[in-house]
Amino acid sequence: MITLAAIAHEVDGQLEGDPDFAVDALHGIQTACRSSLTFYTGQFSQKNSQTKAGAVILKSEHSELFSTNRIIVEDPYLAYARVSRLFVLENNRTHGISDHAVISDHAVIADDVSIGPFSVIGDEAVIEYGVRIGSGVHIGEKVSIKRRCVIEDRVVITGPVDIGRDCVISAGAVIGSCGFGYARDGNSWQRIEQLGGVKIGDRVDVGANTTIDRGSLDNTVIEDGVKLDNLIQIAHNVQIGENTAIAGCVGIAGSTRIGGNCRIGGRAAILGHLEIVDNVDILANTLVTKSILKPGEYASMIPAQPSNVWRKNLAMLRRLSRSTFNKS
Amino acid sequence: MITLAAIAHEVDGQLEGDPDFAVDALHGIQTACRSSLTFYTGQFSQKNSQTKAGAVILKSEHSELFSTNRIIVEDPYLAYARVSRLFVLENNRTHGISDHAVISDHAVIADDVSIGPFSVIGDEAVIEYGVRIGSGVHIGEKVSIKRRCVIEDRVVITGPVDIGRDCVISAGAVIGSCGFGYARDGNSWQRIEQLGGVKIGDRVDVGANTTIDRGSLDNTVIEDGVKLDNLIQIAHNVQIGENTAIAGCVGIAGSTRIGGNCRIGGRAAILGHLEIVDNVDILANTLVTKSILKPGEYASMIPAQPSNVWRKNLAMLRRLSRSTFNKS
Amino acid sequence: MITLAAIAHEVDGQLEGDPDFAVDALHGIQTACRSSLTFYTGQFSQKNSQTKAGAVILKSEHSELFSTNRIIVEDPYLAYARVSRLFVLENNRTHGISDHAVISDHAVIADDVSIGPFSVIGDEAVIEYGVRIGSGVHIGEKVSIKRRCVIEDRVVITGPVDIGRDCVISAGAVIGSCGFGYARDGNSWQRIEQLGGVKIGDRVDVGANTTIDRGSLDNTVIEDGVKLDNLIQIAHNVQIGENTAIAGCVGIAGSTRIGGNCRIGGRAAILGHLEIVDNVDILANTLVTKSILKPGEYASMIPAQPSNVWRKNLAMLRRLSRSTFNKS
Repeated sequence: MITLAAIAHEVDGQLEGDPDFAVDALHGIQTACRSSLTFYTGQFSQKNSQTKAGAVILKSEHSELFSTNRIIVEDPYLAYARVSRLFVLENNRTHGISDHAVISDHAVIADDVSIGPFSVIGDEAVIEYGVRIGSGVHIGEKVSIKRRCVIEDRVVITGPVDIGRDCVISAGAVIGSCGFGYARDGNSWQRIEQLGGVKIGDRVDVGANTTIDRGSLDNTVIEDGVKLDNLIQIAHNVQIGENTAIAGCVGIAGSTRIGGNCRIGGRAAILGHLEIVDNVDILANTLVTKSILKPGEYASMIPAQPSNVWRKNLAMLRRLSRSTFNKS
Repeated sequence: MITLAAIAHEVDGQLEGDPDFAVDALHGIQTACRSSLTFYTGQFSQKNSQTKAGAVILKSEHSELFSTNRIIVEDPYLAYARVSRLFVLENNRTHGISDHAVISDHAVIADDVSIGPFSVIGDEAVIEYGVRIGSGVHIGEKVSIKRRCVIEDRVVITGPVDIGRDCVISAGAVIGSCGFGYARDGNSWQRIEQLGGVKIGDRVDVGANTTIDRGSLDNTVIEDGVKLDNLIQIAHNVQIGENTAIAGCVGIAGSTRIGGNCRIGGRAAILGHLEIVDNVDILANTLVTKSILKPGEYASMIPAQPSNVWRKNLAMLRRLSRSTFNKS
Repeated sequence: MITLAAIAHEVDGQLEGDPDFAVDALHGIQTACRSSLTFYTGQFSQKNSQTKAGAVILKSEHSELFSTNRIIVEDPYLAYARVSRLFVLENNRTHGISDHAVISDHAVIADDVSIGPFSVIGDEAVIEYGVRIGSGVHIGEKVSIKRRCVIEDRVVITGPVDIGRDCVISAGAVIGSCGFGYARDGNSWQRIEQLGGVKIGDRVDVGANTTIDRGSLDNTVIEDGVKLDNLIQIAHNVQIGENTAIAGCVGIAGSTRIGGNCRIGGRAAILGHLEIVDNVDILANTLVTKSILKPGEYASMIPAQPSNVWRKNLAMLRRLSRSTFNKS
């Protein structure tokens, strides 16, 4: 139960209604009930105004659309994000250190750290104040994890890895895996041992089952505020600049440098040894094969068509270079 | 050792041959030996009739092709599927609850449940009759798992998640991971805490290392009979209808609703906030960017060509809009 | 600390300089310091010759570019790969068998095996000499792992799986997961139990969170020297020939046979039941829909363009079959 007054304070909003109104959940505008708080960004139809929510976060220009309690803010979506923290499940509290964890005597564990059962902390690992480590996590030797990070269940962090403050590493992610490097040796491949590490800044999120390889000689670098979704592959020596956000299933090949404030859509692929400057948006399912030196939006996605239509277009595409228009 | 009579009974087939013939393995038609059972669907060449198999499951119209023991059925492939269960490895038996598991006193564990070593069951989790949980599994607080589910090794199920009866969750899958939701806050991103859960129906299979995010406010929903292959990403608030089957490496972005009886080919990608109706087939490697409101088959895949040919076609494609035929 | 004499011996090189010079790290040519060894392959600019490295591995033709200690070899990149092994982190030593592992009395564990905490070894598993198993690993019943393999943290190996000598299985990989096989049964799907296994040759590397399904009846086969990067999906009954290298995020559908010495670029997808001969290169992001019976390079990738340019090309592409040039 949180009062509207507390919520208005959290989001720096102007309350129109009952400050003592008690909210017990945050809900979508259509699914809200009497004791819910919801938010309105203006993108939906008129019927949203018939929400059952007990309170709505919205812009002043939409204020008259709702007759219930209102909190007026400049950016309702951002306000919703801030308020969502107030409703986080209680199981995110720290729980202390499990008797079933194996922690090296040579690890340094700060106060207020929680470590779940069946987790392993290696020699000379440094775990700072307030870090929460789930169950079945592997933290290798010399790994450093700064204040208030959340390391979810079954994460593996190995090799020389530094993780900054307030990061969230989701379940099943692997950080510091061996980069894919081989030298040709006759008919076979000679493995190149990967001697670098991974350096992750503050406020970085890493999604479930995402993999980040350690560098071959230098580090793989993920700067402050980067957000990575699930099932992403970041190869060795990649660098990703501040506040870049990358959606699920993206693959980034070795040694590519991506600037800050980029947005990379789901399933995009970026080849190795490229440079992408700041403020580049790459749309979903796009392949990047050359450096991008100018900010802007880039694409190569082909949307689905009914397959009989697509097959005809494809047949033409596959012999474009032989077409008569080619000679005109 | 299983007799042909028992197999014919299992598949509701008509036995032509020795009912006491003892089968000790199920094999492909080419690799079968004297004591094997195999099946024939008619799709291969004449030499299949020279199989060494001791017995063949087949349609009546192919009966004279084989001189060995035969079981006549309407659908040999379906009969093979049914028979395969009889040959399942013995290690699928339940083994009781390991002394090396950590199980909350506040969890409810039914009879005939097996839980492997180094698994963790959280507070108020409810595990129904006959559920088999492998080793190193994390079942979070308040997770509910219904009768006879198989939860393989290293699976993580977290957040408010309900799993129906007879589901199989393969190794390394993560269910209930945090959705990828952020609000822009100046130059950085404000995390939106994900307060919803995941609701999974009966007879759902989830492949190895597949990830299913919990909803932001409402639930992510996977209906009865859905089959998901390996390394699939299902984002927050996605809904997938009954009996839809999705092949490996598919990514589905947030809030997309997919109907029932759809088939989605490997590596397909579906953008967010779309609606796809029932009975839609999406071919492999296809990108869906708009809602699909009509049943049928959809595609945007481009098959490989020798790269010198492809490069010429690609060169034309990339300047199609400047081509002379454009003006004709 | 390793002397140049020892390094020259390791790479069969000719030393020009001080044989007692002590190297303490391997670094890139730009980031090297006084006590570093580096290598020069000729691909960079003149300023490389200003490296601070105390020693350089290079070809004889580049010898005069550097005034520091030099080791002359035929293939500096291969020499670098060989030397990298000398600098591998000490934590790759074997550490014995953890008291916190659960090992079946019916498993056969050779000498000099290390097994990390919270790992499980099933009945009749056979672990040969010198194998190193990390923490939280699941090795199922009857799995066989040959000499000197490294099985990293949280790996799951299940079902009938044989792994050859000197393999490295990276963290989070799943080998032997259930193949995706179903028979249509009215409106729903009948699961086909997967009764085959996985056979992996010698010197195979498997990347982090990669999944390899076991065969439905016969085995999935990965031959000697194959290298698989992270987040790859190998479906049931796939066969991959010797020394083929596959980059990250590739998906290979069921029963496809890939020859030896192929190179498959990142994010490529290969449909099922195909045959690809030896010495085929498939470029990144390419889709293979038909068998490839001729060695060579194949592609279907479309590189990104600025999205306003791409949208125009795409608009043309999507109505190619209706274009006037089509009738000319």
